[in-house]
Amino acid sequence: MNLILLSPDDLENARLARVRDPRRLAHLAEVHRARVGDTLTLGLEGGLLGRGELLSLSDEEAVFDVSGLDQAPPPALPVHLVLALPRPRMLARTLEHVTALGVKSLTLLNTRRVEKSYWQSPELSEDKIRRHLLLGLEQARDTRLPTVTLAKGFRPFVEDRLPALLEGRQGLLAHPGMPDACPRGVEAPTLLVVGPEGGFIPWEVERLLEAGCRGIHLGPRILRVETAVTALLARLF
Amino acid sequence: MNLILLSPDDLENARLARVRDPRRLAHLAEVHRARVGDTLTLGLEGGLLGRGELLSLSDEEAVFDVSGLDQAPPPALPVHLVLALPRPRMLARTLEHVTALGVKSLTLLNTRRVEKSYWQSPELSEDKIRRHLLLGLEQARDTRLPTVTLAKGFRPFVEDRLPALLEGRQGLLAHPGMPDACPRGVEAPTLLVVGPEGGFIPWEVERLLEAGCRGIHLGPRILRVETAVTALLARLF
Repeated sequence: MNLILLSPDDLENARLARVRDPRRLAHLAEVHRARVGDTLTLGLEGGLLGRGELLSLSDEEAVFDVSGLDQAPPPALPVHLVLALPRPRMLARTLEHVTALGVKSLTLLNTRRVEKSYWQSPELSEDKIRRHLLLGLEQARDTRLPTVTLAKGFRPFVEDRLPALLEGRQGLLAHPGMPDACPRGVEAPTLLVVGPEGGFIPWEVERLLEAGCRGIHLGPRILRVETAVTALLARLF
Repeated sequence: MNLILLSPDDLENARLARVRDPRRLAHLAEVHRARVGDTLTLGLEGGLLGRGELLSLSDEEAVFDVSGLDQAPPPALPVHLVLALPRPRMLARTLEHVTALGVKSLTLLNTRRVEKSYWQSPELSEDKIRRHLLLGLEQARDTRLPTVTLAKGFRPFVEDRLPALLEGRQGLLAHPGMPDACPRGVEAPTLLVVGPEGGFIPWEVERLLEAGCRGIHLGPRILRVETAVTALLARLF
Protein backbone atom coordinates (compact mmCIF):
# COMPACT_ATOMS: atom_id res chain seq x y z
CA MET A 1 0.00 0.00 0.00
CA ASN A 2 1.98 2.97 -1.31
CA LEU A 3 -1.06 5.21 -0.95
CA ILE A 4 -3.85 5.39 1.64
CA LEU A 5 -6.87 5.61 -0.66
CA LEU A 6 -9.81 7.48 0.86
CA SER A 7 -13.35 6.90 -0.35
CA PRO A 8 -15.97 9.66 -0.45
CA ASP A 9 -17.52 8.02 2.65
CA ASP A 10 -14.31 8.60 4.59
CA LEU A 11 -14.46 12.38 4.10
CA GLU A 12 -15.92 14.39 6.95
CA ASN A 13 -15.28 17.72 5.28
CA ALA A 14 -12.76 19.28 2.90
CA ARG A 15 -10.07 18.98 5.55
CA LEU A 16 -10.69 15.75 7.49
CA ALA A 17 -10.99 12.09 6.56
CA ARG A 18 -11.69 9.22 8.93
CA VAL A 19 -10.51 5.69 8.11
CA ARG A 20 -12.42 3.01 10.04
CA ASP A 21 -12.09 -0.26 8.16
CA PRO A 22 -9.91 -2.98 9.68
CA ARG A 23 -7.86 -3.58 6.50
CA ARG A 24 -6.46 -0.07 6.22
CA LEU A 25 -6.13 0.36 10.01
CA ALA A 26 -4.14 -2.87 10.24
CA HIS A 27 -1.92 -1.79 7.37
CA LEU A 28 -1.29 1.62 9.00
CA ALA A 29 -0.30 -0.06 12.25
CA GLU A 30 1.67 -3.04 10.97
CA VAL A 31 3.33 -1.86 7.78
CA HIS A 32 3.55 1.92 8.15
CA ARG A 33 3.87 1.71 11.97
CA ALA A 34 2.16 5.08 11.74
CA ARG A 35 2.05 7.51 14.66
CA VAL A 36 0.14 10.73 15.23
CA GLY A 37 2.04 13.52 13.48
CA ASP A 38 3.37 11.29 10.67
CA THR A 39 2.87 12.48 7.11
CA LEU A 40 1.67 9.82 4.69
CA THR A 41 0.77 9.62 1.01
CA LEU A 42 -3.01 9.93 0.69
CA GLY A 43 -5.38 9.95 -2.26
CA LEU A 44 -9.06 10.70 -2.74
CA GLU A 45 -10.88 8.06 -4.77
CA GLY A 46 -11.31 9.61 -8.23
CA GLY A 47 -9.45 12.76 -7.20
CA LEU A 48 -6.15 14.26 -6.09
CA LEU A 49 -3.34 12.79 -4.07
CA GLY A 50 -0.51 14.15 -1.95
CA ARG A 51 0.91 14.13 1.55
CA GLY A 52 -1.30 14.45 4.63
CA GLU A 53 -0.80 14.36 8.38
CA LEU A 54 -2.19 11.67 10.66
CA LEU A 55 -4.08 13.77 13.23
CA SER A 56 -5.28 11.01 15.52
CA LEU A 57 -5.14 7.23 15.72
CA SER A 58 -6.99 4.66 17.80
CA ASP A 59 -7.98 1.01 17.36
CA GLU A 60 -11.23 2.22 15.78
CA GLU A 61 -10.15 5.04 13.51
CA ALA A 62 -7.42 7.11 11.94
CA VAL A 63 -8.05 10.78 11.20
CA PHE A 64 -6.12 12.48 8.40
CA ASP A 65 -5.68 16.08 7.28
CA VAL A 66 -6.52 15.99 3.57
CA SER A 67 -6.31 19.72 2.90
CA GLY A 68 -2.91 19.48 1.24
CA LEU A 69 -3.70 17.00 -1.55
CA ASP A 70 -2.69 18.75 -4.76
CA GLN A 71 -1.28 16.21 -7.26
CA ALA A 72 -3.11 14.71 -10.18
CA PRO A 73 -3.03 10.89 -10.33
CA PRO A 74 -0.65 9.33 -12.90
CA PRO A 75 -1.88 9.24 -16.51
CA ALA A 76 -4.11 6.36 -17.59
CA LEU A 77 -3.24 4.01 -20.46
CA PRO A 78 -5.24 4.81 -23.63
CA VAL A 79 -6.70 1.32 -23.70
CA HIS A 80 -9.93 -0.58 -23.32
CA LEU A 81 -8.88 -4.11 -22.39
CA VAL A 82 -11.14 -6.99 -23.40
CA LEU A 83 -10.00 -10.08 -21.55
CA ALA A 84 -11.42 -13.60 -21.75
CA LEU A 85 -12.47 -14.34 -18.16
CA PRO A 86 -9.47 -16.02 -16.47
CA ARG A 87 -9.80 -18.64 -13.75
CA PRO A 88 -10.59 -17.05 -10.39
CA ARG A 89 -7.13 -16.83 -8.82
CA MET A 90 -5.60 -15.59 -12.05
CA LEU A 91 -8.44 -13.04 -12.34
CA ALA A 92 -7.64 -11.64 -8.90
CA ARG A 93 -3.96 -11.12 -9.70
CA THR A 94 -4.66 -9.86 -13.22
CA LEU A 95 -7.08 -7.22 -11.93
CA GLU A 96 -4.33 -5.94 -9.64
CA HIS A 97 -1.66 -5.97 -12.36
CA VAL A 98 -3.75 -4.16 -14.97
CA THR A 99 -5.05 -1.59 -12.48
CA ALA A 100 -1.51 -0.88 -11.30
CA LEU A 101 -0.42 -0.49 -14.94
CA GLY A 102 -3.12 2.14 -15.58
CA VAL A 103 -5.96 0.34 -17.37
CA LYS A 104 -9.23 2.23 -16.77
CA SER A 105 -11.74 0.19 -18.74
CA LEU A 106 -11.94 -3.55 -18.81
CA THR A 107 -14.44 -6.00 -20.26
CA LEU A 108 -14.37 -9.61 -19.03
CA LEU A 109 -15.58 -11.73 -21.93
CA ASN A 110 -16.96 -15.22 -22.30
CA THR A 111 -15.34 -17.35 -24.99
CA ARG A 112 -15.55 -20.99 -25.96
CA ARG A 113 -12.55 -21.99 -23.82
CA VAL A 114 -13.62 -20.09 -20.69
CA GLU A 115 -14.86 -22.71 -18.22
CA LYS A 116 -18.51 -22.06 -17.38
CA SER A 117 -17.83 -22.44 -13.66
CA TYR A 118 -15.65 -19.30 -13.72
CA TRP A 119 -18.78 -17.19 -14.15
CA GLN A 120 -20.11 -18.55 -10.83
CA SER A 121 -16.96 -17.64 -8.89
CA PRO A 122 -17.35 -15.38 -5.84
CA GLU A 123 -14.32 -13.49 -7.23
CA LEU A 124 -16.74 -11.93 -9.72
CA SER A 125 -18.86 -10.23 -7.04
CA GLU A 126 -18.77 -6.45 -7.17
CA ASP A 127 -17.15 -6.32 -3.73
CA LYS A 128 -14.35 -8.73 -4.58
CA ILE A 129 -13.60 -7.03 -7.88
CA ARG A 130 -13.53 -3.64 -6.17
CA ARG A 131 -11.12 -4.98 -3.55
CA HIS A 132 -8.60 -6.05 -6.20
CA LEU A 133 -8.95 -2.77 -8.08
CA LEU A 134 -8.27 -0.86 -4.84
CA LEU A 135 -5.16 -2.98 -4.20
CA GLY A 136 -3.94 -2.10 -7.69
CA LEU A 137 -4.55 1.63 -7.14
CA GLU A 138 -2.88 1.58 -3.71
CA GLN A 139 0.13 -0.20 -5.21
CA ALA A 140 0.57 2.24 -8.10
CA ARG A 141 -0.39 5.45 -6.24
CA ASP A 142 -3.40 6.04 -8.44
CA THR A 143 -6.89 7.22 -7.42
CA ARG A 144 -9.11 6.51 -10.43
CA LEU A 145 -10.93 3.16 -10.32
CA PRO A 146 -11.23 1.21 -13.56
CA THR A 147 -14.69 0.33 -14.88
CA VAL A 148 -15.21 -3.42 -15.19
CA THR A 149 -17.97 -4.81 -17.43
CA LEU A 150 -19.00 -8.45 -17.72
CA ALA A 151 -19.85 -9.76 -21.20
CA LYS A 152 -21.29 -13.24 -20.73
CA GLY A 153 -22.00 -13.87 -24.39
CA PHE A 154 -19.30 -13.74 -27.07
CA ARG A 155 -21.62 -13.23 -30.03
CA PRO A 156 -23.73 -10.45 -28.45
CA PHE A 157 -20.53 -8.69 -27.40
CA VAL A 158 -19.02 -8.83 -30.89
CA GLU A 159 -22.25 -7.91 -32.68
CA ASP A 160 -23.80 -5.36 -30.34
CA ARG A 161 -21.03 -3.77 -28.28
CA LEU A 162 -17.74 -4.12 -30.14
CA PRO A 163 -18.64 -1.77 -33.03
CA ALA A 164 -19.21 1.13 -30.62
CA LEU A 165 -16.02 0.32 -28.69
CA LEU A 166 -14.05 0.41 -31.96
CA GLU A 167 -15.28 3.91 -32.85
CA GLY A 168 -12.21 6.09 -32.42
CA ARG A 169 -10.06 3.17 -31.25
CA GLN A 170 -7.74 0.80 -33.11
CA GLY A 171 -8.61 -2.80 -32.33
CA LEU A 172 -5.75 -5.23 -31.62
CA LEU A 173 -6.30 -8.95 -31.19
CA ALA A 174 -3.40 -10.62 -29.37
CA HIS A 175 -3.30 -14.24 -30.51
CA PRO A 176 -0.44 -16.66 -31.24
CA GLY A 177 0.32 -17.06 -34.93
CA MET A 178 -1.13 -13.71 -36.05
CA PRO A 179 0.96 -12.06 -38.79
CA ASP A 180 2.20 -8.86 -37.09
CA ALA A 181 4.42 -8.46 -34.05
CA CYS A 182 2.93 -6.43 -31.20
CA PRO A 183 3.62 -2.74 -31.97
CA ARG A 184 5.61 -0.56 -29.55
CA GLY A 185 5.07 2.92 -28.16
CA VAL A 186 1.45 3.30 -29.29
CA GLU A 187 -0.29 6.56 -28.36
CA ALA A 188 -3.56 6.12 -30.24
CA PRO A 189 -6.64 4.96 -28.30
CA THR A 190 -6.64 1.20 -28.47
CA LEU A 191 -8.93 -1.73 -27.80
CA LEU A 192 -6.84 -4.76 -26.87
CA VAL A 193 -8.40 -8.23 -26.94
CA VAL A 194 -6.69 -11.09 -25.09
CA GLY A 195 -7.93 -14.68 -25.15
CA PRO A 196 -8.18 -17.37 -22.47
CA GLU A 197 -5.67 -20.08 -21.54
CA GLY A 198 -5.80 -22.31 -24.61
CA GLY A 199 -6.63 -19.34 -26.86
CA PHE A 200 -9.60 -18.25 -28.91
CA ILE A 201 -11.12 -20.84 -31.24
CA PRO A 202 -10.71 -20.10 -34.98
CA TRP A 203 -14.35 -19.00 -35.33
CA GLU A 204 -13.83 -16.39 -32.58
CA VAL A 205 -10.62 -15.15 -34.22
CA GLU A 206 -12.48 -14.75 -37.52
CA ARG A 207 -15.31 -12.77 -35.89
CA LEU A 208 -12.86 -10.41 -34.15
CA LEU A 209 -10.84 -9.85 -37.33
CA GLU A 210 -14.05 -9.26 -39.33
CA ALA A 211 -15.13 -6.70 -36.74
CA GLY A 212 -12.00 -4.71 -37.58
CA CYS A 213 -9.38 -5.94 -35.11
CA ARG A 214 -5.81 -6.42 -36.30
CA GLY A 215 -4.10 -9.63 -35.24
CA ILE A 216 -0.83 -9.26 -33.33
CA HIS A 217 1.49 -11.72 -31.55
CA LEU A 218 4.17 -11.62 -28.85
CA GLY A 219 6.50 -14.17 -30.45
CA PRO A 220 6.73 -17.96 -30.31
CA ARG A 221 6.50 -18.28 -26.51
CA ILE A 222 3.16 -19.23 -24.99
CA LEU A 223 2.61 -17.07 -21.91
CA ARG A 224 0.18 -17.36 -19.04
CA VAL A 225 -2.62 -14.83 -19.29
CA GLU A 226 -1.34 -12.65 -16.46
CA THR A 227 2.19 -12.57 -17.93
CA ALA A 228 0.87 -11.94 -21.44
CA VAL A 229 -1.41 -9.07 -20.41
CA THR A 230 1.37 -7.27 -18.52
CA ALA A 231 3.83 -7.87 -21.37
CA LEU A 232 1.35 -6.60 -24.00
CA LEU A 233 0.50 -3.42 -22.05
CA ALA A 234 4.17 -2.70 -21.33
CA ARG A 235 5.19 -3.17 -24.94
CA LEU A 236 2.25 -1.33 -26.47
CA PHE A 237 2.25 1.84 -24.33
CA MET B 1 2.08 -27.51 -19.52
CA ASN B 2 2.28 -26.78 -23.23
CA LEU B 3 5.30 -29.04 -23.56
CA ILE B 4 6.24 -32.35 -21.91
CA LEU B 5 9.84 -31.59 -20.94
CA LEU B 6 12.06 -34.68 -20.82
CA SER B 7 15.21 -34.74 -18.73
CA PRO B 8 18.34 -36.69 -19.77
CA ASP B 9 17.36 -39.27 -17.11
CA ASP B 10 14.09 -39.94 -18.95
CA LEU B 11 15.85 -40.99 -22.16
CA GLU B 12 16.28 -44.69 -22.71
CA ASN B 13 17.88 -44.27 -26.11
CA ALA B 14 17.69 -41.88 -29.06
CA ARG B 15 14.15 -43.02 -29.77
CA LEU B 16 12.45 -43.70 -26.42
CA ALA B 17 11.80 -41.68 -23.30
CA ARG B 18 10.09 -42.89 -20.14
CA VAL B 19 8.27 -40.44 -17.86
CA ARG B 20 7.80 -41.80 -14.32
CA ASP B 21 7.28 -38.87 -11.98
CA PRO B 22 3.79 -38.34 -10.54
CA ARG B 23 3.59 -34.67 -11.53
CA ARG B 24 3.93 -35.20 -15.27
CA LEU B 25 1.93 -38.46 -15.22
CA ALA B 26 -0.94 -36.71 -13.44
CA HIS B 27 -0.81 -33.84 -15.91
CA LEU B 28 -0.87 -36.24 -18.87
CA ALA B 29 -3.89 -38.02 -17.44
CA GLU B 30 -5.89 -35.09 -16.09
CA VAL B 31 -5.14 -32.18 -18.41
CA HIS B 32 -4.10 -33.82 -21.67
CA ARG B 33 -6.35 -36.87 -21.10
CA ALA B 34 -3.65 -38.57 -23.14
CA ARG B 35 -4.14 -42.00 -24.71
CA VAL B 36 -1.75 -44.36 -26.42
CA GLY B 37 -1.32 -43.19 -30.00
CA ASP B 38 -1.77 -39.50 -29.19
CA THR B 39 0.85 -37.10 -30.51
CA LEU B 40 2.03 -34.49 -27.99
CA THR B 41 4.52 -31.62 -27.91
CA LEU B 42 7.74 -32.90 -26.34
CA GLY B 43 11.08 -31.28 -25.63
CA LEU B 44 14.48 -32.52 -24.49
CA GLU B 45 15.94 -30.50 -21.65
CA GLY B 46 18.60 -28.30 -23.25
CA GLY B 47 17.80 -29.64 -26.72
CA LEU B 48 15.22 -29.89 -29.48
CA LEU B 49 11.45 -30.03 -29.34
CA GLY B 50 8.70 -31.29 -31.59
CA ARG B 51 5.81 -33.73 -31.75
CA GLY B 52 6.09 -37.28 -30.46
CA GLU B 53 3.77 -40.24 -30.07
CA LEU B 54 2.70 -41.70 -26.73
CA LEU B 55 3.68 -45.36 -27.18
CA SER B 56 2.44 -46.75 -23.89
CA LEU B 57 0.82 -45.46 -20.71
CA SER B 58 0.26 -46.97 -17.27
CA ASP B 59 -0.10 -45.62 -13.74
CA GLU B 60 3.67 -45.92 -13.38
CA GLU B 61 5.04 -44.66 -16.65
CA ALA B 62 4.46 -43.07 -20.03
CA VAL B 63 6.69 -44.02 -22.96
CA PHE B 64 7.21 -41.55 -25.80
CA ASP B 65 8.77 -41.76 -29.23
CA VAL B 66 11.27 -38.88 -29.30
CA SER B 67 12.83 -39.64 -32.69
CA GLY B 68 10.92 -36.85 -34.44
CA LEU B 69 12.02 -33.86 -32.35
CA ASP B 70 13.51 -31.40 -34.83
CA GLN B 71 12.73 -27.82 -33.76
CA ALA B 72 15.07 -25.44 -31.99
CA PRO B 73 13.68 -23.89 -28.82
CA PRO B 74 12.52 -20.25 -29.07
CA PRO B 75 15.26 -17.59 -28.91
CA ALA B 76 16.48 -16.45 -25.49
CA LEU B 77 16.37 -12.83 -24.35
CA PRO B 78 19.84 -11.19 -24.50
CA VAL B 79 19.73 -10.37 -20.81
CA HIS B 80 21.32 -11.22 -17.51
CA LEU B 81 18.72 -10.30 -14.89
CA VAL B 82 19.91 -9.21 -11.46
CA LEU B 83 16.95 -9.22 -9.12
CA ALA B 84 16.85 -8.29 -5.45
CA LEU B 85 15.59 -11.46 -3.76
CA PRO B 86 11.76 -11.16 -3.59
CA ARG B 87 9.68 -12.63 -0.78
CA PRO B 88 9.21 -16.37 -1.25
CA ARG B 89 5.78 -16.48 -2.93
CA MET B 90 6.69 -13.62 -5.23
CA LEU B 91 9.99 -15.36 -6.02
CA ALA B 92 8.16 -18.51 -7.11
CA ARG B 93 5.89 -16.64 -9.51
CA THR B 94 8.67 -14.37 -10.76
CA LEU B 95 10.90 -17.36 -11.60
CA GLU B 96 8.07 -18.77 -13.73
CA HIS B 97 7.34 -15.42 -15.44
CA VAL B 98 10.97 -14.66 -16.34
CA THR B 99 11.68 -18.22 -17.49
CA ALA B 100 8.60 -18.17 -19.70
CA LEU B 101 9.72 -14.81 -21.12
CA GLY B 102 13.12 -16.25 -22.10
CA VAL B 103 15.58 -15.12 -19.41
CA LYS B 104 18.53 -17.54 -19.28
CA SER B 105 20.72 -16.05 -16.58
CA LEU B 106 19.51 -14.69 -13.30
CA THR B 107 21.27 -13.49 -10.18
CA LEU B 108 19.25 -13.18 -6.96
CA LEU B 109 20.87 -10.37 -4.98
CA ASN B 110 20.83 -9.30 -1.37
CA THR B 111 20.14 -5.62 -0.77
CA ARG B 112 19.42 -3.52 2.31
CA ARG B 113 15.64 -3.86 1.94
CA VAL B 114 15.59 -7.61 1.33
CA GLU B 115 14.35 -9.21 4.55
CA LYS B 116 17.01 -11.51 5.98
CA SER B 117 14.46 -14.29 6.50
CA TYR B 118 13.96 -14.58 2.72
CA TRP B 119 17.41 -16.18 2.44
CA GLN B 120 16.27 -18.99 4.76
CA SER B 121 13.17 -19.79 2.69
CA PRO B 122 12.79 -23.38 1.41
CA GLU B 123 11.83 -21.75 -1.93
CA LEU B 124 15.56 -21.11 -2.40
CA SER B 125 16.48 -24.80 -2.40
CA GLU B 126 17.89 -26.06 -5.67
CA ASP B 127 14.93 -28.43 -6.08
CA LYS B 128 12.28 -25.77 -5.57
CA ILE B 129 14.00 -23.31 -7.89
CA ARG B 130 14.35 -26.00 -10.55
CA ARG B 131 10.66 -26.83 -10.23
CA HIS B 132 9.63 -23.23 -10.97
CA LEU B 133 12.07 -22.98 -13.87
CA LEU B 134 10.62 -26.18 -15.35
CA LEU B 135 7.09 -24.78 -15.03
CA GLY B 136 8.20 -21.68 -16.91
CA LEU B 137 9.80 -23.76 -19.68
CA GLU B 138 6.76 -26.04 -19.98
CA GLN B 139 4.50 -22.97 -20.19
CA ALA B 140 6.52 -21.25 -22.93
CA ARG B 141 7.52 -24.39 -24.88
CA ASP B 142 11.19 -23.86 -24.21
CA THR B 143 13.85 -26.46 -23.31
CA ARG B 144 16.84 -24.46 -22.05
CA LEU B 145 16.95 -24.01 -18.27
CA PRO B 146 18.09 -20.64 -16.92
CA THR B 147 21.13 -20.50 -14.64
CA VAL B 148 20.28 -19.04 -11.23
CA THR B 149 23.05 -17.66 -8.99
CA LEU B 150 22.64 -16.44 -5.41
CA ALA B 151 24.56 -13.32 -4.38
CA LYS B 152 24.15 -12.98 -0.64
CA GLY B 153 26.31 -9.89 -0.28
CA PHE B 154 25.61 -6.66 -2.15
CA ARG B 155 29.10 -5.19 -1.86
CA PRO B 156 30.99 -8.36 -2.93
CA PHE B 157 28.62 -8.70 -5.89
CA VAL B 158 29.16 -5.11 -7.04
CA GLU B 159 32.91 -5.14 -6.46
CA ASP B 160 33.88 -8.65 -7.51
CA ARG B 161 31.30 -9.95 -9.96
CA LEU B 162 29.53 -7.01 -11.59
CA PRO B 163 32.56 -5.75 -13.57
CA ALA B 164 32.87 -9.09 -15.39
CA LEU B 165 29.11 -9.23 -16.01
CA LEU B 166 29.27 -5.76 -17.57
CA GLU B 167 31.95 -6.76 -20.06
CA GLY B 168 30.17 -6.78 -23.41
CA ARG B 169 26.81 -5.89 -21.82
CA GLN B 170 25.08 -2.57 -21.25
CA GLY B 171 23.99 -2.23 -17.63
CA LEU B 172 20.51 -0.86 -16.90
CA LEU B 173 19.34 -0.06 -13.38
CA ALA B 174 15.55 0.09 -13.14
CA HIS B 175 14.70 2.43 -10.29
CA PRO B 176 11.92 5.01 -9.77
CA GLY B 177 13.04 8.58 -10.35
CA MET B 178 15.97 7.78 -12.65
CA PRO B 179 16.33 10.27 -15.52
CA ASP B 180 15.69 8.11 -18.60
CA ALA B 181 12.58 6.19 -19.60
CA CYS B 182 13.08 2.47 -20.16
CA PRO B 183 14.30 2.02 -23.77
CA ARG B 184 12.36 -0.10 -26.26
CA GLY B 185 13.37 -2.77 -28.74
CA VAL B 186 16.91 -3.31 -27.44
CA GLU B 187 19.00 -5.96 -29.19
CA ALA B 188 22.33 -5.43 -27.45
CA PRO B 189 23.34 -7.79 -24.63
CA THR B 190 22.03 -6.24 -21.45
CA LEU B 191 22.38 -6.59 -17.70
CA LEU B 192 19.15 -5.48 -16.04
CA VAL B 193 19.12 -4.72 -12.31
CA VAL B 194 15.78 -4.61 -10.45
CA GLY B 195 15.43 -3.69 -6.78
CA PRO B 196 13.28 -5.07 -3.98
CA GLU B 197 9.84 -3.93 -2.78
CA GLY B 198 10.68 -0.53 -1.31
CA GLY B 199 13.54 -0.04 -3.74
CA PHE B 200 17.31 0.20 -3.48
CA ILE B 201 18.69 2.57 -0.84
CA PRO B 202 20.52 5.63 -2.22
CA TRP B 203 23.96 4.16 -1.38
CA GLU B 204 23.15 1.07 -3.47
CA VAL B 205 21.92 3.18 -6.38
CA GLU B 206 25.19 5.15 -6.28
CA ARG B 207 27.32 1.99 -6.29
CA LEU B 208 25.41 0.55 -9.28
CA LEU B 209 25.63 3.80 -11.25
CA GLU B 210 29.36 4.08 -10.43
CA ALA B 211 29.86 0.54 -11.68
CA GLY B 212 28.57 1.68 -15.08
CA CYS B 213 24.84 1.01 -14.99
CA ARG B 214 22.48 3.54 -16.55
CA GLY B 215 19.41 4.46 -14.51
CA ILE B 216 16.03 3.93 -16.18
CA HIS B 217 12.42 4.19 -15.00
CA LEU B 218 9.00 2.85 -16.01
CA GLY B 219 7.02 6.02 -15.25
CA PRO B 220 5.37 7.38 -12.12
CA ARG B 221 3.51 4.19 -11.17
CA ILE B 222 4.98 2.00 -8.45
CA LEU B 223 4.68 -1.62 -9.55
CA ARG B 224 5.03 -4.86 -7.66
CA VAL B 225 8.29 -6.62 -8.44
CA GLU B 226 6.66 -9.37 -10.51
CA THR B 227 4.69 -6.83 -12.58
CA ALA B 228 7.72 -4.56 -12.98
CA VAL B 229 10.06 -7.35 -14.13
CA THR B 230 7.61 -8.59 -16.77
CA ALA B 231 6.91 -5.03 -17.92
CA LEU B 232 10.64 -4.19 -18.16
CA LEU B 233 11.50 -7.33 -20.14
CA ALA B 234 8.54 -6.85 -22.49
CA ARG B 235 9.39 -3.22 -23.14
CA LEU B 236 13.15 -3.70 -23.47
CA PHE B 237 13.24 -6.70 -25.84
